[in-house]
Amino acid sequence: MMRHMGGREEFEAVAVTGSANVELLAEQAVETGAAIAVTADEARYDDLKAALAGTGIEAAAGQAALVEAAARPVDIAMAGIVGIAGLAPTLAAAGSGATIALANKECLVSAGSLFIGEVERGGGRLLPVDSEHNAIFQVLDRDRDHAVERIILTASGGPFRDWPVERMAGVTPETAAAHPNWSMGLKISIDSATLFNKALEMIEALHLFGRPGRTIEVIVHPQSVIHSMVGYCDGSVLAQLGAPDMRTAIGYALGWPDRPRLPVERLDFARLSRLDFHAPDEERFPALRLARVAMEAGGLAGAVLNGAKEAALDAFIARRVGFLDIARLVEATMTAMRDAGPDGSIEAVYAADAEARGRVASLIAE
Amino acid sequence: MMRHMGGREEFEAVAVTGSANVELLAEQAVETGAAIAVTADEARYDDLKAALAGTGIEAAAGQAALVEAAARPVDIAMAGIVGIAGLAPTLAAAGSGATIALANKECLVSAGSLFIGEVERGGGRLLPVDSEHNAIFQVLDRDRDHAVERIILTASGGPFRDWPVERMAGVTPETAAAHPNWSMGLKISIDSATLFNKALEMIEALHLFGRPGRTIEVIVHPQSVIHSMVGYCDGSVLAQLGAPDMRTAIGYALGWPDRPRLPVERLDFARLSRLDFHAPDEERFPALRLARVAMEAGGLAGAVLNGAKEAALDAFIARRVGFLDIARLVEATMTAMRDAGPDGSIEAVYAADAEARGRVASLIAE
Repeated sequence: MMRHMGGREEFEAVAVTGSANVELLAEQAVETGAAIAVTADEARYDDLKAALAGTGIEAAAGQAALVEAAARPVDIAMAGIVGIAGLAPTLAAAGSGATIALANKECLVSAGSLFIGEVERGGGRLLPVDSEHNAIFQVLDRDRDHAVERIILTASGGPFRDWPVERMAGVTPETAAAHPNWSMGLKISIDSATLFNKALEMIEALHLFGRPGRTIEVIVHPQSVIHSMVGYCDGSVLAQLGAPDMRTAIGYALGWPDRPRLPVERLDFARLSRLDFHAPDEERFPALRLARVAMEAGGLAGAVLNGAKEAALDAFIARRVGFLDIARLVEATMTAMRDAGPDGSIEAVYAADAEARGRVASLIAE
Repeated sequence: MMRHMGGREEFEAVAVTGSANVELLAEQAVETGAAIAVTADEARYDDLKAALAGTGIEAAAGQAALVEAAARPVDIAMAGIVGIAGLAPTLAAAGSGATIALANKECLVSAGSLFIGEVERGGGRLLPVDSEHNAIFQVLDRDRDHAVERIILTASGGPFRDWPVERMAGVTPETAAAHPNWSMGLKISIDSATLFNKALEMIEALHLFGRPGRTIEVIVHPQSVIHSMVGYCDGSVLAQLGAPDMRTAIGYALGWPDRPRLPVERLDFARLSRLDFHAPDEERFPALRLARVAMEAGGLAGAVLNGAKEAALDAFIARRVGFLDIARLVEATMTAMRDAGPDGSIEAVYAADAEARGRVASLIAE
């Protein structure tokens, strides 16, 4: 990405982080000229140190090192650590006042009020990298909040959007991972197939844009060309469209308020030929309904939804539960934990996440 | 429109203008509380004066009175006088420094450089009321011209978009007037059927947004839900969508930079179900090709295209020429007048317009 936007002439990399693939991490650190490379995996510290030998780049490992690296004073922090593990480093970056290019979902889903509070306290800015929220950010008039009537998130609908529920019951992780438009990892592909990815995005939109939950709509749009839309009080709907290429959203966040010139495919409307829309079926895809319950409840309800979903997803991948059980387990857990309280601290978020995962494990074991 | 936006509490009407329907004009003058009402039709002056008797509203008539009224100091001038007759009053309003909510096409098509120069000299602002240009205005980042790659005007394609050329040859004014999406007058409906309306809009976009002609594209989109789009250098395309209701664009222009709350239909994407696109066929619809010729030539070429089109259109309505002859007559006139020169004065524009009309009449008489 940095290559397309002027490289080291335009950006000075301070820290890069990664997980167990320390060879790739070392490569990225050398390419970007970062001062420090941090692996989340403490067991890989020696390998990272060896891979960086002679480069002058510092090596570090573990959660505390991630948080320390994230808190370093920078202009922009790209928060792309996946899962609940991204929470503490991203909160640290928010507290430092950096502009945060946010790709991690848990900060907003599991700890929305806490995180937004930390961004406001730090005085930095939040730029969404998720293609849907980036689309909304591009067409949302932040100076005229009273004119915004609704946010319309588009959803591909996943590979089972037209399947009868009986057939969905027999879905395996392999079939669920075959996403029609985007090339993605296994977990995120299954989240797309259950529409839980869209449920998380609804909760993210609630916090990111400070909109009431009832004004956040979802429309199934199989081609994923319209990335999302904003509806205004004069009847106008503004939309951002593009090819399914994450570089547009990442480049927009890194370059904002300017736009970088990117070598991504340009839309050819004659070749697209048509764009389709239909209402999501909340009977077959209860995730959207559960998102509205979580938005209404607020506080730790998002952490509960996400923690339960993660545990149920792992169980589905391990073939311990069926495809339709994912939403059932989440709903049962949300019902049991309906008075989870506010997301006042990171410890409260961790505890709700852990309790939700534990309850899902117990429900499966029953 | 004023009613929806706060009425006389928010707006103070200075002048209203109209044509031969002086009863409607008097009614509008009374409703808006205007200081003066002007009819373009001098023969109706006495009737207008009678209709306004006792209201305290001044009556006036004729072209000079229109120009005088347009030059009065106001915040916003709604320039809706149809045809070349709107040119002088709108130029006068531009010179006064008023914000111009522009609905007249000829100012930009026939006198683009002259008009934009007058707007710049007056120091006012130009807000397009045409739904396509209003859409572009809504999603164009005027602070980052270097990031704009293309403007994509959508076209309904008119009632003959799928007709073979042999069948188009036999089209009558009645069939041409049956526009699929918008309820419009006869002339504008036929302009929509020939795609000359889109040709005019391409030339308008050239001047309004200061874009090179080659960056202005047209895509046929039969549902007319996407009103137009702007493509950026990062691959993003921003679009404005809405129901086919002119109140959105008019309200946007009158309320800008705020948005009024309007009782127009909201888009329901599930009910829309699909949006279609296809490339325009320039063999069957030469108007688009002629627009590019005019954009490339600049100067009075737009005045020639428009004048010739008006004369050919009148001849088609009078059943003196066929549907396909409209574009043929325009092309022959543009070729004959290819060295028409710059649009340096309103007299030069009038002369080119008159000469183009005269040449079409001669071609028909041959």
